[in-house]
Amino acid sequence: MSNVPAKTPESTIIALDAMGGDRAPKIVIEGAVLARERYPEIKFIFFGDEAVVAPLLDKHPVLRACSELRHTPDAIDSNLKPSLALRQGRKSSMRLAINAVAEGEASSVVSAGNTGALMAMAKFVLKTLPGIDRPAIATMLPTQTGETVMLDLGANIECDAENLVQFALMGAIFCRTVLGRTEPTIGLLNIGTEELKGHDEVRIAASILRERPIPGRLLGFVEGNDITAGTVDVVVTDGFSGNIALKAIEGTAHLMSHFLKQAFKSSLLAKGGYLLSRGALANLKNRVDPRRYNGAMFLGLQGVCVKSHGGTDGEGFANAIGVAHDLVARGFNARIAEELARQYGITAAAAAANPGPVGDIL
Amino acid sequence: MSNVPAKTPESTIIALDAMGGDRAPKIVIEGAVLARERYPEIKFIFFGDEAVVAPLLDKHPVLRACSELRHTPDAIDSNLKPSLALRQGRKSSMRLAINAVAEGEASSVVSAGNTGALMAMAKFVLKTLPGIDRPAIATMLPTQTGETVMLDLGANIECDAENLVQFALMGAIFCRTVLGRTEPTIGLLNIGTEELKGHDEVRIAASILRERPIPGRLLGFVEGNDITAGTVDVVVTDGFSGNIALKAIEGTAHLMSHFLKQAFKSSLLAKGGYLLSRGALANLKNRVDPRRYNGAMFLGLQGVCVKSHGGTDGEGFANAIGVAHDLVARGFNARIAEELARQYGITAAAAAANPGPVGDIL
Repeated sequence: MSNVPAKTPESTIIALDAMGGDRAPKIVIEGAVLARERYPEIKFIFFGDEAVVAPLLDKHPVLRACSELRHTPDAIDSNLKPSLALRQGRKSSMRLAINAVAEGEASSVVSAGNTGALMAMAKFVLKTLPGIDRPAIATMLPTQTGETVMLDLGANIECDAENLVQFALMGAIFCRTVLGRTEPTIGLLNIGTEELKGHDEVRIAASILRERPIPGRLLGFVEGNDITAGTVDVVVTDGFSGNIALKAIEGTAHLMSHFLKQAFKSSLLAKGGYLLSRGALANLKNRVDPRRYNGAMFLGLQGVCVKSHGGTDGEGFANAIGVAHDLVARGFNARIAEELARQYGITAAAAAANPGPVGDIL
Repeated sequence: MSNVPAKTPESTIIALDAMGGDRAPKIVIEGAVLARERYPEIKFIFFGDEAVVAPLLDKHPVLRACSELRHTPDAIDSNLKPSLALRQGRKSSMRLAINAVAEGEASSVVSAGNTGALMAMAKFVLKTLPGIDRPAIATMLPTQTGETVMLDLGANIECDAENLVQFALMGAIFCRTVLGRTEPTIGLLNIGTEELKGHDEVRIAASILRERPIPGRLLGFVEGNDITAGTVDVVVTDGFSGNIALKAIEGTAHLMSHFLKQAFKSSLLAKGGYLLSRGALANLKNRVDPRRYNGAMFLGLQGVCVKSHGGTDGEGFANAIGVAHDLVARGFNARIAEELARQYGITAAAAAANPGPVGDIL
C-alpha cells in the first residue's frame, strides 16, 4: 500500500468505516473526497472490503494518495444487536476502525453504520473519560437564533441526575471549544419551566448544576419548543426523550416541506410564485438540510467517534467527517478532561483505570 | 338570569371557564359566539366575574339568549400549583365549571386556564372511569396522511405498562367513535422499532396489547418522526416524552414558518413569488394552524373536560368547544366504559366506587 500514514498518533488521520451506511462504500468515498477538499491536511484509513473499496478509491487519485485501505473481512449488519456485534464483530470494518483510534493510529473514527453497535464497540474499545459514567450522543440543530447542541439522543434511555449533569458539562465544553461560545447557556429539557416540574432526576440535576462552578450558565428548565427556538446553547435530556424530540423535529421539518411542495403545486399562480422564489427557497432548504447537521458525536469517550446518518449521501458524510475534524482540531477531549479534573478532582492518570460501563445500548 | 338552561343533564349544555387563558374572558366569549354558529343546538353556562363577563356577553344577543352567567368570586392563577388550586380554588370559575359537569348541569367543560390545576380538579371532582388508573391528555395533530391522536401529553410523567395500555385503548376508541375509523392503528412511541428497544414499561405494554382483543391494531413501536408521518392513528407514550414531542413539533413548525418568512423577504424576486403564491401559502398555514388543533382532551374521566391553549384567540377557543361537543355527541365516554367492561369485566356500577388517583400532576 503506498502513501501509508505514519503509525504515530497523528491528529490529521481519520479512520473511516467504509462498509457502514445504506449506500456504503460509495457515499463514504464521496464524502472523503469532499472532506479532503475542505481540509487539505487530513488523511484517511479506510476499513472495508478491499475488492469493493479499492476500485472506488482508485477513481479518485488525490484521495487515494492520502489514504490507506485496510481489508476487513466482515461488516456489521444494520440490524445486528449491539451485544452480538460486540461478540461477533471483532474483524468488522467498524470495529477495526475504532481500534485504530484506541491504538493511536487515527485521531478519530467516522461510521454511518449501526448506531447501537458503534456505541457499544466505542465504549468497549475506547473506554469512557475518567469522571464520565456514560457517554452520550450529541448533535447540533438549527434554531431561530443559530444552532443548539442537544444530548443525549439515545445512548442512555434512563439517566440519573449525575448523568444529566455530566451531559451538561460536556455540552457546555463543546460550545466553548468547538463553537467558540464563551458562556454557553444550558437548559434541562422538561415539561414546564417551574422548579417543581418533572421527575426527580431532572430536578436534582438542576439543583446540582446550580451549586457547581460550571463552564456555562444554567438557564433552568426548557420545554420541547425551546429546542428550535434557540433558547439555550445546550439542551440536556435523557436518551429516550432526546431521541424522540430529535426525530419529532426531523419529522415536522419533513411534514412542513411536504405541505410546502403541495402548496406550490396547488395552482398555476402558486407554480409561478415558486419559480420566482425558488432561489430563496433553496436557501431555506439549505438551512434545514439534514445533511448539514449530519454527524452525531459520541461524547465522553477517550477518543473521537462520530456517527453519520445511515441514509446520507457524500455531502452528508463529508459533514460528519468535518465534525470529527473539528472535535480533534479544537482539542475537545483534552478540554473535557481538564474540566472533569476541575469538577471532580480527577487526573488524567485515572483514565486508564476507568473501564467504563457498557450501559443500556446493549 | 333569563334563559337559564334547564337543570337536568343536557347533552347540549357546555360549561365554560370564562376566566381561564391569557386574554380571558374576551376570547372565551368570542369563541362561544363562533361555536354557537357552528352548533346551533348548544347552550352555555359561563363561570366568571359577572362585572367583567356580563358586559361582554351583552354585546352578543344571540349568544346571550342561549347562555347563563354564574358569578364566581375567584379565578385560578396560571402559575398556581395544582395542589394549592385544589385547596384554595373551591369558589373559582374553573372549579365551579367542573362541578357543573359532576352535578349533571352541563355535558362538558372547556377551560383555557392552568393545565395542572384543571387536571387536578377534574380528577378530584369527576373521578376517573372505572378501569382507568390515570386520565391522560390527548390531542390531534396534522400528519402527512391526515390526523393522528397522541397521548399522554403531560398528565403523567411516569407511566407503567398498564397505564400505557389504557391510553392505547382510549386513543383507539376515540378514533373509532369521534373520527369514525373502524380499525385504528396504534403505535407505542419508542427510540427504535425493534422489539428489544426501549424501557421495560413500553416493552411490557406492547406484549400486553399483542395478547388482548383491542379495539384497533397494534403496529408496534413507532419513532418520533412517525408522529407527523402519520404512520399510525394513535401514538401512545408517557406524559414526559409526549409533552416534549408535542412541543418539539410545535416549535419546529414555528421555526419552519420563520425561515419561510425570511426566505420570502430575502429578495425582490422572492417577494414577487410570495405575492403569486400567497393563496396557496394561506392554505398551508391553515393546515398547520395551532388554532385548528386547539382543544386537548382529558380522557379517562367521568365527564368531558377539554383544555384550550392559554394563548389562543376566539377561533381557537371555538375549536376547543367543538372538541367537547364532538366527544359528547359521539358518546365517547359511554363507549370507553363499554370497552373497559369488555377488557376488564368492569360494570358501569363500579364507577361510583372508583375515587381515582390524584397522580403526578400535583
